[in-house]
Amino acid sequence: MGGTTIKGAVVDREGHFSAAERRPTGAEQGPKAVIDAILGLARDLAAHESRPSALGLAMPGLVSEREGTVIEASNLGLKGTPIRQIAMERLGIAVEVLHDVRAAALAEGLLGAARGHRDYLLLTLGTGVGAAVVIDGHPYTGAHGIGGELGHMCVHPRGPRCACGGVGCVEAIASAGAVARRYGGRVAAEEVAAHAAARDPEAERVWRDAVDALALAVANYQALLDPELVVIGGGLASAGDALFAPLRERAAEVTRFGDPVSIVPAGLSEDAGARGAAIAAWRAAGLDEPSLAAWAKAA
Amino acid sequence: MGGTTIKGAVVDREGHFSAAERRPTGAEQGPKAVIDAILGLARDLAAHESRPSALGLAMPGLVSEREGTVIEASNLGLKGTPIRQIAMERLGIAVEVLHDVRAAALAEGLLGAARGHRDYLLLTLGTGVGAAVVIDGHPYTGAHGIGGELGHMCVHPRGPRCACGGVGCVEAIASAGAVARRYGGRVAAEEVAAHAAARDPEAERVWRDAVDALALAVANYQALLDPELVVIGGGLASAGDALFAPLRERAAEVTRFGDPVSIVPAGLSEDAGARGAAIAAWRAAGLDEPSLAAWAKAA
Repeated sequence: MGGTTIKGAVVDREGHFSAAERRPTGAEQGPKAVIDAILGLARDLAAHESRPSALGLAMPGLVSEREGTVIEASNLGLKGTPIRQIAMERLGIAVEVLHDVRAAALAEGLLGAARGHRDYLLLTLGTGVGAAVVIDGHPYTGAHGIGGELGHMCVHPRGPRCACGGVGCVEAIASAGAVARRYGGRVAAEEVAAHAAARDPEAERVWRDAVDALALAVANYQALLDPELVVIGGGLASAGDALFAPLRERAAEVTRFGDPVSIVPAGLSEDAGARGAAIAAWRAAGLDEPSLAAWAKAA
Repeated sequence: MGGTTIKGAVVDREGHFSAAERRPTGAEQGPKAVIDAILGLARDLAAHESRPSALGLAMPGLVSEREGTVIEASNLGLKGTPIRQIAMERLGIAVEVLHDVRAAALAEGLLGAARGHRDYLLLTLGTGVGAAVVIDGHPYTGAHGIGGELGHMCVHPRGPRCACGGVGCVEAIASAGAVARRYGGRVAAEEVAAHAAARDPEAERVWRDAVDALALAVANYQALLDPELVVIGGGLASAGDALFAPLRERAAEVTRFGDPVSIVPAGLSEDAGARGAAIAAWRAAGLDEPSLAAWAKAA
Protein backbone atom coordinates (compact mmCIF):
# COMPACT_ATOMS: atom_id res chain seq x y z
CA MET A 1 0.00 0.00 0.00
CA GLY A 2 1.23 3.42 -0.90
CA GLY A 3 -0.62 6.68 -0.46
CA THR A 4 -2.10 6.63 -3.96
CA THR A 5 -1.55 3.09 -5.28
CA ILE A 6 -2.17 -0.44 -4.04
CA LYS A 7 -0.01 -3.14 -5.55
CA GLY A 8 -0.97 -6.79 -5.23
CA ALA A 9 0.06 -10.18 -6.57
CA VAL A 10 -0.51 -13.90 -6.15
CA VAL A 11 2.49 -15.60 -4.55
CA ASP A 12 3.06 -19.33 -4.81
CA ARG A 13 4.98 -21.76 -2.62
CA GLU A 14 8.22 -21.11 -4.51
CA GLY A 15 7.94 -17.35 -4.05
CA HIS A 16 6.93 -16.56 -7.62
CA PHE A 17 4.73 -13.51 -8.07
CA SER A 18 1.97 -13.64 -10.69
CA ALA A 19 -1.14 -11.69 -11.68
CA ALA A 20 0.59 -8.55 -10.34
CA GLU A 21 -1.71 -5.57 -10.47
CA ARG A 22 -1.86 -1.98 -9.28
CA ARG A 23 -4.96 0.04 -8.50
CA PRO A 24 -5.68 3.45 -6.98
CA THR A 25 -6.24 3.46 -3.21
CA GLY A 26 -9.18 5.81 -3.57
CA ALA A 27 -7.90 7.65 -0.51
CA GLU A 28 -9.49 10.90 -1.68
CA GLN A 29 -12.91 9.24 -1.23
CA GLY A 30 -12.29 8.42 2.41
CA PRO A 31 -11.31 5.39 4.51
CA LYS A 32 -14.25 3.20 3.47
CA ALA A 33 -13.16 3.46 -0.18
CA VAL A 34 -9.60 2.49 0.79
CA ILE A 35 -10.78 -0.62 2.64
CA ASP A 36 -13.05 -1.57 -0.26
CA ALA A 37 -10.16 -1.10 -2.70
CA ILE A 38 -7.90 -3.39 -0.63
CA LEU A 39 -10.54 -6.10 -0.28
CA GLY A 40 -11.64 -5.80 -3.92
CA LEU A 41 -8.09 -6.32 -5.16
CA ALA A 42 -7.56 -9.19 -2.72
CA ARG A 43 -10.77 -10.90 -3.85
CA ASP A 44 -9.86 -10.51 -7.55
CA LEU A 45 -6.37 -11.88 -6.92
CA ALA A 46 -7.77 -14.80 -4.91
CA ALA A 47 -9.95 -15.74 -7.91
CA HIS A 48 -6.76 -16.75 -9.72
CA GLU A 49 -6.23 -19.56 -7.23
CA SER A 50 -8.40 -22.62 -6.62
CA ARG A 51 -7.56 -22.60 -2.92
CA PRO A 52 -6.13 -19.25 -1.78
CA SER A 53 -4.64 -19.68 1.69
CA ALA A 54 -3.89 -16.33 3.18
CA LEU A 55 -3.59 -12.61 2.58
CA GLY A 56 -0.55 -10.58 3.66
CA LEU A 57 -0.92 -6.82 3.90
CA ALA A 58 2.03 -4.44 4.17
CA MET A 59 0.58 -1.17 5.44
CA PRO A 60 2.15 2.28 5.83
CA GLY A 61 1.88 4.57 8.85
CA LEU A 62 1.67 3.33 12.42
CA VAL A 63 0.67 -0.34 12.51
CA SER A 64 0.12 -2.85 15.30
CA GLU A 65 0.96 -6.34 14.04
CA ARG A 66 -0.32 -7.90 17.25
CA GLU A 67 -3.74 -6.25 17.01
CA GLY A 68 -3.83 -6.35 13.22
CA THR A 69 -4.78 -2.68 13.14
CA VAL A 70 -3.66 0.44 11.36
CA ILE A 71 -3.18 2.79 14.29
CA GLU A 72 -2.82 5.76 11.96
CA ALA A 73 -2.03 6.17 8.26
CA SER A 74 -2.79 9.80 7.59
CA ASN A 75 -2.40 9.75 3.80
CA LEU A 76 -4.93 6.88 3.62
CA GLY A 77 -7.29 8.47 6.15
CA LEU A 78 -7.11 5.33 8.32
CA LYS A 79 -7.12 5.61 12.11
CA GLY A 80 -7.65 2.73 14.55
CA THR A 81 -8.75 0.53 11.64
CA PRO A 82 -8.99 -3.21 12.54
CA ILE A 83 -8.05 -4.19 9.01
CA ARG A 84 -7.11 -7.79 9.83
CA GLN A 85 -10.48 -8.53 11.39
CA ILE A 86 -12.37 -6.78 8.56
CA ALA A 87 -10.43 -8.65 5.90
CA MET A 88 -10.78 -12.04 7.62
CA GLU A 89 -14.52 -11.59 7.99
CA ARG A 90 -15.06 -10.54 4.40
CA LEU A 91 -12.58 -12.91 2.71
CA GLY A 92 -12.77 -15.98 4.96
CA ILE A 93 -9.01 -16.66 4.85
CA ALA A 94 -6.09 -16.06 7.20
CA VAL A 95 -4.87 -12.45 7.11
CA GLU A 96 -1.61 -11.02 8.40
CA VAL A 97 -1.06 -7.27 8.69
CA LEU A 98 2.47 -5.87 8.82
CA HIS A 99 4.02 -2.44 8.90
CA ASP A 100 5.51 -1.96 5.43
CA VAL A 101 9.07 -1.28 6.55
CA ARG A 102 8.99 -4.14 9.07
CA ALA A 103 7.71 -6.41 6.29
CA ALA A 104 10.61 -5.30 4.08
CA ALA A 105 13.04 -5.87 6.97
CA LEU A 106 11.74 -9.40 7.44
CA ALA A 107 12.26 -10.07 3.72
CA GLU A 108 15.76 -8.53 3.72
CA GLY A 109 16.67 -10.89 6.56
CA LEU A 110 15.23 -14.02 4.97
CA LEU A 111 15.92 -13.31 1.30
CA GLY A 112 18.07 -10.19 0.91
CA ALA A 113 21.04 -8.23 2.22
CA ALA A 114 20.63 -9.33 5.85
CA ARG A 115 20.46 -13.09 5.23
CA GLY A 116 22.11 -14.96 8.06
CA HIS A 117 21.82 -12.01 10.43
CA ARG A 118 19.54 -11.83 13.47
CA ASP A 119 20.10 -8.26 14.71
CA TYR A 120 20.02 -5.46 12.19
CA LEU A 121 18.48 -2.16 11.19
CA LEU A 122 16.72 -1.47 7.91
CA LEU A 123 16.57 2.17 6.87
CA THR A 124 14.58 3.24 3.80
CA LEU A 125 15.37 6.71 2.52
CA GLY A 126 12.45 7.86 0.37
CA THR A 127 9.97 10.70 0.66
CA GLY A 128 10.33 10.05 4.37
CA VAL A 129 12.68 7.84 6.36
CA GLY A 130 11.37 4.41 7.28
CA ALA A 131 13.15 2.17 9.74
CA ALA A 132 12.76 -1.26 11.24
CA VAL A 133 14.63 -2.57 14.27
CA VAL A 134 15.25 -6.31 13.96
CA ILE A 135 15.97 -8.11 17.23
CA ASP A 136 16.86 -11.80 17.18
CA GLY A 137 15.30 -12.24 13.74
CA HIS A 138 12.04 -10.45 14.52
CA PRO A 139 11.14 -6.92 13.41
CA TYR A 140 10.44 -5.26 16.76
CA THR A 141 7.16 -3.40 17.01
CA GLY A 142 7.58 -1.77 20.39
CA ALA A 143 5.02 -1.90 23.17
CA HIS A 144 2.30 -0.05 21.22
CA GLY A 145 3.27 -0.91 17.64
CA ILE A 146 4.82 2.48 16.92
CA GLY A 147 8.53 1.76 17.31
CA GLY A 148 11.14 2.03 14.57
CA GLU A 149 10.86 5.74 13.93
CA LEU A 150 14.60 6.33 13.61
CA GLY A 151 13.63 8.94 11.02
CA HIS A 152 12.35 11.03 13.88
CA MET A 153 15.41 10.74 16.05
CA CYS A 154 16.61 14.30 16.63
CA VAL A 155 20.22 14.60 15.48
CA HIS A 156 20.41 18.35 15.82
CA PRO A 157 18.38 20.32 18.38
CA ARG A 158 18.77 23.45 16.22
CA GLY A 159 18.20 21.61 12.95
CA PRO A 160 15.40 22.14 10.44
CA ARG A 161 11.75 21.74 11.39
CA CYS A 162 10.27 18.34 10.48
CA ALA A 163 6.79 17.55 9.16
CA CYS A 164 6.20 15.61 12.42
CA GLY A 165 6.40 18.87 14.39
CA GLY A 166 9.83 18.09 15.79
CA VAL A 167 13.14 19.80 15.09
CA GLY A 168 16.30 18.30 13.62
CA CYS A 169 14.80 14.89 12.80
CA VAL A 170 16.85 12.62 10.51
CA GLU A 171 13.94 12.72 8.06
CA ALA A 172 14.08 16.53 7.83
CA ILE A 173 17.73 16.35 6.70
CA ALA A 174 18.43 12.99 5.12
CA SER A 175 15.29 11.66 3.44
CA ALA A 176 15.29 11.78 -0.36
CA GLY A 177 12.46 14.30 0.01
CA ALA A 178 14.46 16.57 2.32
CA VAL A 179 17.60 16.41 0.18
CA ALA A 180 15.65 17.44 -2.95
CA ARG A 181 13.75 20.15 -1.05
CA ARG A 182 16.84 21.58 0.63
CA TYR A 183 18.52 21.84 -2.78
CA GLY A 184 15.63 24.01 -3.97
CA GLY A 185 13.37 21.26 -5.30
CA ARG A 186 14.88 21.55 -8.79
CA VAL A 187 16.13 17.95 -9.14
CA ALA A 188 15.67 14.55 -7.51
CA ALA A 189 17.78 13.63 -4.50
CA GLU A 190 19.96 11.18 -6.42
CA GLU A 191 20.94 14.03 -8.75
CA VAL A 192 21.91 16.23 -5.81
CA ALA A 193 24.60 13.61 -5.15
CA ALA A 194 25.86 14.01 -8.72
CA HIS A 195 25.91 17.82 -8.38
CA ALA A 196 27.81 17.45 -5.11
CA ALA A 197 30.34 15.17 -6.80
CA ALA A 198 30.75 17.93 -9.44
CA ARG A 199 31.62 20.32 -6.58
CA ASP A 200 28.47 22.45 -6.68
CA PRO A 201 28.87 24.11 -3.24
CA GLU A 202 25.16 24.17 -2.41
CA ALA A 203 24.75 20.51 -3.38
CA GLU A 204 27.87 19.65 -1.38
CA ARG A 205 26.42 21.29 1.73
CA VAL A 206 23.01 19.60 1.40
CA TRP A 207 24.59 16.21 0.71
CA ARG A 208 27.12 16.53 3.54
CA ASP A 209 24.33 17.47 5.97
CA ALA A 210 22.39 14.37 4.90
CA VAL A 211 25.42 12.09 5.24
CA ASP A 212 26.30 13.61 8.64
CA ALA A 213 22.75 13.15 9.93
CA LEU A 214 22.64 9.53 8.75
CA ALA A 215 26.08 8.80 10.20
CA LEU A 216 25.05 10.20 13.57
CA ALA A 217 21.79 8.24 13.50
CA VAL A 218 23.67 5.03 12.66
CA ALA A 219 26.26 5.68 15.40
CA ASN A 220 23.52 6.45 17.94
CA TYR A 221 21.71 3.29 16.91
CA GLN A 222 24.90 1.27 17.24
CA ALA A 223 25.67 2.66 20.71
CA LEU A 224 22.17 1.77 21.85
CA LEU A 225 21.48 -1.53 20.08
CA ASP A 226 24.84 -2.91 18.87
CA PRO A 227 23.55 -4.47 15.61
CA GLU A 228 25.40 -6.80 13.26
CA LEU A 229 24.43 -4.81 10.19
CA VAL A 230 22.71 -1.69 8.87
CA VAL A 231 20.83 -2.12 5.57
CA ILE A 232 19.83 0.97 3.59
CA GLY A 233 17.25 1.04 0.81
CA GLY A 234 14.87 3.51 -0.80
CA GLY A 235 15.42 6.18 -3.44
CA LEU A 236 18.46 7.79 -1.87
CA ALA A 237 20.26 4.42 -1.72
CA SER A 238 20.20 4.35 -5.53
CA ALA A 239 22.91 7.05 -5.34
CA GLY A 240 25.18 4.06 -4.61
CA ASP A 241 28.77 4.82 -3.69
CA ALA A 242 28.03 8.55 -3.64
CA LEU A 243 26.02 7.75 -0.52
CA PHE A 244 27.69 4.65 0.93
CA ALA A 245 31.35 5.73 0.68
CA PRO A 246 31.08 9.04 2.61
CA LEU A 247 28.48 7.52 4.96
CA ARG A 248 30.78 4.66 5.98
CA GLU A 249 33.66 7.09 6.45
CA ARG A 250 31.64 9.54 8.53
CA ALA A 251 29.95 6.77 10.57
CA ALA A 252 33.38 5.33 11.41
CA GLU A 253 34.43 8.78 12.70
CA VAL A 254 31.45 9.09 15.04
CA THR A 255 31.27 5.45 16.17
CA ARG A 256 31.59 5.35 19.95
CA PHE A 257 32.45 1.73 20.83
CA GLY A 258 33.58 -1.31 18.92
CA ASP A 259 34.23 -1.54 15.21
CA PRO A 260 32.08 0.58 12.91
CA VAL A 261 28.99 -1.41 11.94
CA SER A 262 28.71 -2.68 8.35
CA ILE A 263 26.45 -0.47 6.23
CA VAL A 264 25.17 -2.21 3.08
CA PRO A 265 22.62 -1.51 0.34
CA ALA A 266 19.29 -3.34 0.45
CA GLY A 267 19.30 -6.58 -1.50
CA LEU A 268 15.68 -6.60 -2.64
CA SER A 269 13.84 -4.20 -4.90
CA GLU A 270 10.89 -2.09 -3.86
CA ASP A 271 8.69 -5.21 -3.57
CA ALA A 272 10.58 -6.25 -0.40
CA GLY A 273 7.55 -5.27 1.69
CA ALA A 274 5.26 -7.44 -0.41
CA ARG A 275 7.63 -10.40 -0.07
CA GLY A 276 7.81 -9.97 3.70
CA ALA A 277 4.02 -9.75 3.95
CA ALA A 278 3.69 -12.88 1.79
CA ILE A 279 6.03 -14.86 4.06
CA ALA A 280 4.16 -13.68 7.14
CA ALA A 281 0.83 -14.64 5.52
CA TRP A 282 2.22 -18.04 4.61
CA ARG A 283 3.20 -18.63 8.20
CA ALA A 284 -0.10 -17.24 9.53
CA ALA A 285 -1.99 -19.74 7.39
CA GLY A 286 -0.26 -22.54 9.28
CA LEU A 287 1.03 -24.10 6.07
CA ASP A 288 4.43 -25.72 5.70
CA GLU A 289 7.26 -23.20 5.88
CA PRO A 290 8.03 -22.13 2.29
CA SER A 291 11.47 -22.82 0.87
CA LEU A 292 13.41 -19.62 1.55
CA ALA A 293 16.12 -20.70 -0.88
CA ALA A 294 13.53 -20.80 -3.66
CA TRP A 295 12.03 -17.48 -2.53
CA ALA A 296 15.45 -15.83 -2.50
CA LYS A 297 16.05 -17.09 -6.05
CA ALA A 298 12.67 -15.72 -7.17
CA ALA A 299 13.22 -12.33 -5.49
CA MET B 1 31.80 -4.69 41.22
CA GLY B 2 32.76 -1.04 41.26
CA GLY B 3 36.08 0.42 40.21
CA THR B 4 37.51 0.33 43.74
CA THR B 5 35.18 -1.90 45.77
CA ILE B 6 33.62 -5.34 45.40
CA LYS B 7 30.44 -5.94 47.34
CA GLY B 8 29.19 -9.45 47.92
CA ALA B 9 26.55 -11.29 49.91
CA VAL B 10 24.91 -14.66 50.38
CA VAL B 11 21.36 -14.71 49.02
CA ASP B 12 18.83 -17.29 50.08
CA ARG B 13 15.73 -18.64 48.38
CA GLU B 14 13.55 -15.88 49.85
CA GLY B 15 15.84 -13.15 48.54
CA HIS B 16 17.38 -12.28 51.92
CA PHE B 17 20.93 -10.99 51.82
CA SER B 18 23.33 -12.03 54.58
CA ALA B 19 27.07 -11.99 55.31
CA ALA B 20 27.28 -8.83 53.19
CA GLU B 21 30.85 -7.72 52.81
CA ARG B 22 32.89 -5.21 50.83
CA ARG B 23 36.52 -5.49 49.83
CA PRO B 24 38.93 -3.54 47.64
CA THR B 25 39.11 -4.69 44.01
CA GLY B 26 42.89 -4.37 44.02
CA ALA B 27 42.65 -2.86 40.55
CA GLU B 28 45.86 -0.89 41.07
CA GLN B 29 47.71 -4.24 41.23
CA GLY B 30 46.47 -5.37 37.83
CA PRO B 31 43.83 -7.71 36.42
CA LYS B 32 45.08 -10.87 38.14
CA ALA B 33 44.61 -9.23 41.54
CA VAL B 34 41.06 -8.23 40.56
CA ILE B 35 40.16 -11.79 39.55
CA ASP B 36 41.71 -13.16 42.76
CA ALA B 37 39.77 -10.62 44.81
CA ILE B 38 36.48 -11.65 43.18
CA LEU B 39 37.13 -15.36 43.63
CA GLY B 40 38.45 -14.92 47.16
CA LEU B 41 35.32 -13.07 48.25
CA ALA B 42 33.11 -15.63 46.48
CA ARG B 43 34.88 -18.51 48.21
CA ASP B 44 34.61 -16.86 51.64
CA LEU B 45 30.92 -16.16 51.09
CA ALA B 46 30.32 -19.72 49.87
CA ALA B 47 31.81 -21.01 53.14
CA HIS B 48 28.73 -19.63 54.94
CA GLU B 49 26.55 -22.15 53.13
CA SER B 50 26.58 -25.93 53.37
CA ARG B 51 25.62 -26.28 49.72
CA PRO B 52 26.25 -23.07 47.74
CA SER B 53 24.52 -23.36 44.36
CA ALA B 54 25.66 -20.58 42.11
CA LEU B 55 27.53 -17.31 41.82
CA GLY B 56 26.09 -14.26 40.11
CA LEU B 57 28.49 -11.51 39.08
CA ALA B 58 27.34 -8.00 38.05
CA MET B 59 30.27 -6.50 36.18
CA PRO B 60 30.89 -2.95 34.91
CA GLY B 61 32.18 -1.96 31.47
CA LEU B 62 31.41 -3.89 28.30
CA VAL B 63 30.17 -7.38 29.10
CA SER B 64 29.02 -10.33 27.00
CA GLU B 65 26.47 -12.37 28.96
CA ARG B 66 26.44 -15.04 26.28
CA GLU B 67 30.19 -15.57 26.38
CA GLY B 68 30.50 -14.87 30.10
CA THR B 69 33.32 -12.43 29.41
CA VAL B 70 34.27 -8.92 30.35
CA ILE B 71 34.98 -7.43 26.94
CA GLU B 72 36.50 -4.34 28.52
CA ALA B 73 36.35 -2.74 31.95
CA SER B 74 39.04 -0.10 31.85
CA ASN B 75 38.95 0.91 35.51
CA LEU B 76 39.46 -2.75 36.51
CA GLY B 77 42.12 -3.38 33.86
CA LEU B 78 40.06 -6.26 32.43
CA LYS B 79 39.96 -6.90 28.70
CA GLY B 80 38.62 -10.04 27.00
CA THR B 81 38.49 -11.76 30.41
CA PRO B 82 36.54 -15.07 30.41
CA ILE B 83 35.46 -14.53 33.98
CA ARG B 84 32.60 -17.07 33.93
CA GLN B 85 34.88 -19.88 32.83
CA ILE B 86 37.62 -18.92 35.29
CA ALA B 87 35.16 -18.74 38.18
CA MET B 88 33.44 -22.02 37.29
CA GLU B 89 36.75 -23.85 37.09
CA ARG B 90 38.04 -22.48 40.37
CA LEU B 91 34.80 -22.62 42.39
CA GLY B 92 33.08 -25.66 40.89
CA ILE B 93 29.61 -24.10 40.91
CA ALA B 94 27.35 -22.50 38.29
CA VAL B 95 28.37 -18.92 37.49
CA GLU B 96 26.39 -16.26 35.69
CA VAL B 97 28.00 -13.02 34.52
CA LEU B 98 25.85 -9.96 33.84
CA HIS B 99 26.48 -6.38 32.86
CA ASP B 100 25.76 -4.38 36.01
CA VAL B 101 23.11 -2.09 34.52
CA ARG B 102 21.40 -4.99 32.72
CA ALA B 103 21.39 -6.88 36.04
CA ALA B 104 19.77 -3.87 37.70
CA ALA B 105 17.25 -3.63 34.86
CA LEU B 106 16.31 -7.29 35.32
CA ALA B 107 15.79 -6.68 39.05
CA GLU B 108 13.74 -3.50 38.46
CA GLY B 109 11.46 -5.52 36.15
CA LEU B 110 11.02 -8.46 38.52
CA LEU B 111 11.11 -6.69 41.88
CA GLY B 112 11.11 -2.91 41.38
CA ALA B 113 9.64 0.01 39.46
CA ALA B 114 9.10 -1.92 36.20
CA ARG B 115 7.21 -4.89 37.69
CA GLY B 116 4.60 -6.10 35.24
CA HIS B 117 6.31 -4.44 32.28
CA ARG B 118 8.08 -6.26 29.45
CA ASP B 119 9.51 -3.37 27.39
CA TYR B 120 11.31 -0.61 29.22
CA LEU B 121 14.48 1.41 29.55
CA LEU B 122 16.57 1.72 32.70
CA LEU B 123 18.79 4.77 32.89
CA THR B 124 21.24 5.23 35.77
CA LEU B 125 22.62 8.73 36.17
CA GLY B 126 25.82 8.53 38.19
CA THR B 127 29.44 9.34 37.43
CA GLY B 128 28.51 8.19 33.94
CA VAL B 129 25.19 7.26 32.36
CA GLY B 130 24.30 3.58 32.34
CA ALA B 131 21.42 2.22 30.35
CA ALA B 132 19.72 -1.10 29.70
CA VAL B 133 17.23 -1.77 26.92
CA VAL B 134 14.67 -4.36 28.03
CA ILE B 135 12.83 -6.13 25.21
CA ASP B 136 10.05 -8.58 26.03
CA GLY B 137 11.34 -9.01 29.58
CA HIS B 138 14.98 -9.58 28.66
CA PRO B 139 17.77 -7.00 29.00
CA TYR B 140 19.03 -6.81 25.42
CA THR B 141 22.77 -7.22 24.99
CA GLY B 142 23.09 -6.45 21.28
CA ALA B 143 24.95 -8.60 18.79
CA HIS B 144 28.36 -8.20 20.47
CA GLY B 145 27.34 -7.54 24.08
CA ILE B 146 28.00 -3.80 23.90
CA GLY B 147 24.48 -2.39 23.42
CA GLY B 148 22.67 -0.12 25.84
CA GLU B 149 25.02 2.85 25.63
CA LEU B 150 22.26 5.47 25.54
CA GLY B 151 24.68 7.61 27.53
CA HIS B 152 26.71 7.91 24.36
CA MET B 153 23.86 8.91 22.11
CA CYS B 154 24.80 12.27 20.63
CA VAL B 155 22.06 14.78 21.43
CA HIS B 156 23.96 17.82 20.23
CA PRO B 157 26.58 17.67 17.44
CA ARG B 158 28.11 20.89 18.79
CA GLY B 159 27.80 19.86 22.43
CA PRO B 160 30.60 19.29 24.96
CA ARG B 161 33.34 16.72 24.38
CA CYS B 162 32.73 13.38 26.14
CA ALA B 163 35.28 11.11 27.85
CA CYS B 164 34.47 8.48 25.16
CA GLY B 165 35.96 10.77 22.51
CA GLY B 166 32.59 11.73 21.07
CA VAL B 167 30.84 15.08 21.13
CA GLY B 168 27.50 15.99 22.67
CA CYS B 169 26.89 12.62 24.35
CA VAL B 170 24.09 12.45 26.94
CA GLU B 171 26.74 11.47 29.51
CA ALA B 172 28.77 14.65 28.86
CA ILE B 173 25.72 16.81 29.73
CA ALA B 174 23.37 14.86 31.97
CA SER B 175 25.36 12.43 34.14
CA ALA B 176 25.70 13.40 37.79
CA GLY B 177 29.41 13.75 37.06
CA ALA B 178 28.85 16.15 34.16
CA VAL B 179 26.33 18.27 36.06
CA ALA B 180 28.73 18.70 38.98
CA ARG B 181 31.67 19.39 36.67
CA ARG B 182 29.79 21.87 34.48
CA TYR B 183 28.78 23.80 37.62
CA GLY B 184 32.46 24.18 38.48
CA GLY B 185 32.91 21.04 40.57
CA ARG B 186 32.04 22.91 43.76
CA VAL B 187 29.06 20.81 44.85
CA ALA B 188 27.43 17.46 44.09
CA ALA B 189 24.96 17.21 41.22
CA GLU B 190 21.93 16.90 43.51
CA GLU B 191 22.88 20.26 45.03
CA VAL B 192 23.07 21.90 41.61
CA ALA B 193 19.35 21.15 41.38
CA ALA B 194 18.80 22.98 44.66
CA HIS B 195 20.83 25.97 43.46
CA ALA B 196 18.82 25.98 40.23
CA ALA B 197 15.58 25.97 42.23
CA ALA B 198 16.96 28.98 44.13
CA ARG B 199 17.37 30.74 40.75
CA ASP B 200 21.17 30.71 40.57
CA PRO B 201 21.53 31.46 36.83
CA GLU B 202 24.57 29.24 36.25
CA ALA B 203 22.94 26.32 38.06
CA GLU B 204 19.73 26.91 36.11
CA ARG B 205 21.62 26.72 32.83
CA VAL B 206 23.53 23.53 33.76
CA TRP B 207 20.39 21.86 35.09
CA ARG B 208 18.27 22.89 32.09
CA ASP B 209 20.92 21.53 29.71
CA ALA B 210 20.89 18.21 31.60
CA VAL B 211 17.09 18.00 31.58
CA ASP B 212 16.96 18.93 27.87
CA ALA B 213 19.55 16.30 26.97
CA LEU B 214 17.72 13.61 28.94
CA ALA B 215 14.36 14.61 27.47
CA LEU B 216 15.74 14.39 23.95
CA ALA B 217 17.36 11.02 24.69
CA VAL B 218 14.08 9.69 26.11
CA ALA B 219 12.10 11.02 23.12
CA ASN B 220 14.61 9.54 20.66
CA TYR B 221 14.45 6.24 22.51
CA GLN B 222 10.66 6.32 22.43
CA ALA B 223 10.54 7.06 18.69
CA LEU B 224 12.86 4.15 18.03
CA LEU B 225 11.73 1.54 20.56
CA ASP B 226 8.28 2.58 21.80
CA PRO B 227 8.71 1.37 25.40
CA GLU B 228 6.06 1.06 28.11
CA LEU B 229 8.16 2.81 30.70
CA VAL B 230 11.42 4.65 31.39
CA VAL B 231 12.95 4.02 34.83
CA ILE B 232 15.64 6.38 36.11
CA GLY B 233 18.02 5.65 38.98
CA GLY B 234 21.47 6.66 40.15
CA GLY B 235 22.71 9.71 42.05
CA LEU B 236 20.96 12.32 39.94
CA ALA B 237 17.59 10.59 40.44
CA SER B 238 17.88 11.37 44.14
CA ALA B 239 17.12 14.99 43.17
CA GLY B 240 13.53 13.70 43.01
CA ASP B 241 10.90 16.11 41.69
CA ALA B 242 13.59 18.67 40.83
CA LEU B 243 14.57 16.19 38.11
CA PHE B 244 11.37 14.30 37.31
CA ALA B 245 8.96 17.26 37.06
CA PRO B 246 10.89 19.30 34.44
CA LEU B 247 12.03 16.11 32.68
CA ARG B 248 8.46 14.86 32.20
CA GLU B 249 7.40 18.31 30.99
CA ARG B 250 10.27 18.67 28.53
CA ALA B 251 10.00 15.06 27.31
CA ALA B 252 6.29 15.63 26.59
CA GLU B 253 7.24 18.67 24.48
CA VAL B 254 9.71 16.73 22.34
CA THR B 255 7.76 13.45 22.08
CA ARG B 256 7.17 12.69 18.40
CA PHE B 257 4.40 10.09 18.31
CA GLY B 258 1.91 8.71 20.78
CA ASP B 259 1.51 9.74 24.40
CA PRO B 260 4.64 10.76 26.30
CA VAL B 261 6.15 7.67 27.91
CA SER B 262 5.94 7.32 31.72
CA ILE B 263 9.18 8.31 33.42
CA VAL B 264 9.49 6.93 36.96
CA PRO B 265 12.19 6.70 39.65
CA ALA B 266 13.93 3.36 40.18
CA GLY B 267 12.26 1.22 42.83
CA LEU B 268 15.33 -0.56 44.20
CA SER B 269 18.36 0.82 45.97
CA GLU B 270 21.91 0.61 44.69
CA ASP B 271 21.96 -3.15 45.29
CA ALA B 272 19.60 -3.64 42.30
CA GLY B 273 22.47 -5.03 40.25
CA ALA B 274 23.33 -7.57 42.95
CA ARG B 275 19.68 -8.69 43.13
CA GLY B 276 19.51 -9.09 39.36
CA ALA B 277 22.74 -11.10 39.32
CA ALA B 278 21.43 -13.28 42.15
CA ILE B 279 18.22 -14.07 40.25
CA ALA B 280 20.20 -14.87 37.10
CA ALA B 281 22.54 -17.14 39.12
CA TRP B 282 19.57 -18.85 40.70
CA ARG B 283 18.16 -19.58 37.27
CA ALA B 284 21.58 -20.64 35.89
CA ALA B 285 21.89 -23.20 38.65
CA GLY B 286 18.75 -24.88 37.32
CA LEU B 287 17.04 -24.68 40.71
CA ASP B 288 13.36 -23.99 41.21
CA GLU B 289 12.42 -20.45 40.29
CA PRO B 290 12.64 -18.36 43.47
CA SER B 291 9.51 -16.66 44.76
CA LEU B 292 9.66 -13.18 43.26
CA ALA B 293 6.98 -11.97 45.66
CA ALA B 294 9.27 -12.88 48.58
CA TRP B 295 12.28 -11.32 46.83
CA ALA B 296 10.37 -8.11 46.19
CA LYS B 297 9.44 -7.97 49.86
CA ALA B 298 13.07 -8.52 50.87
CA ALA B 299 14.40 -5.88 48.43
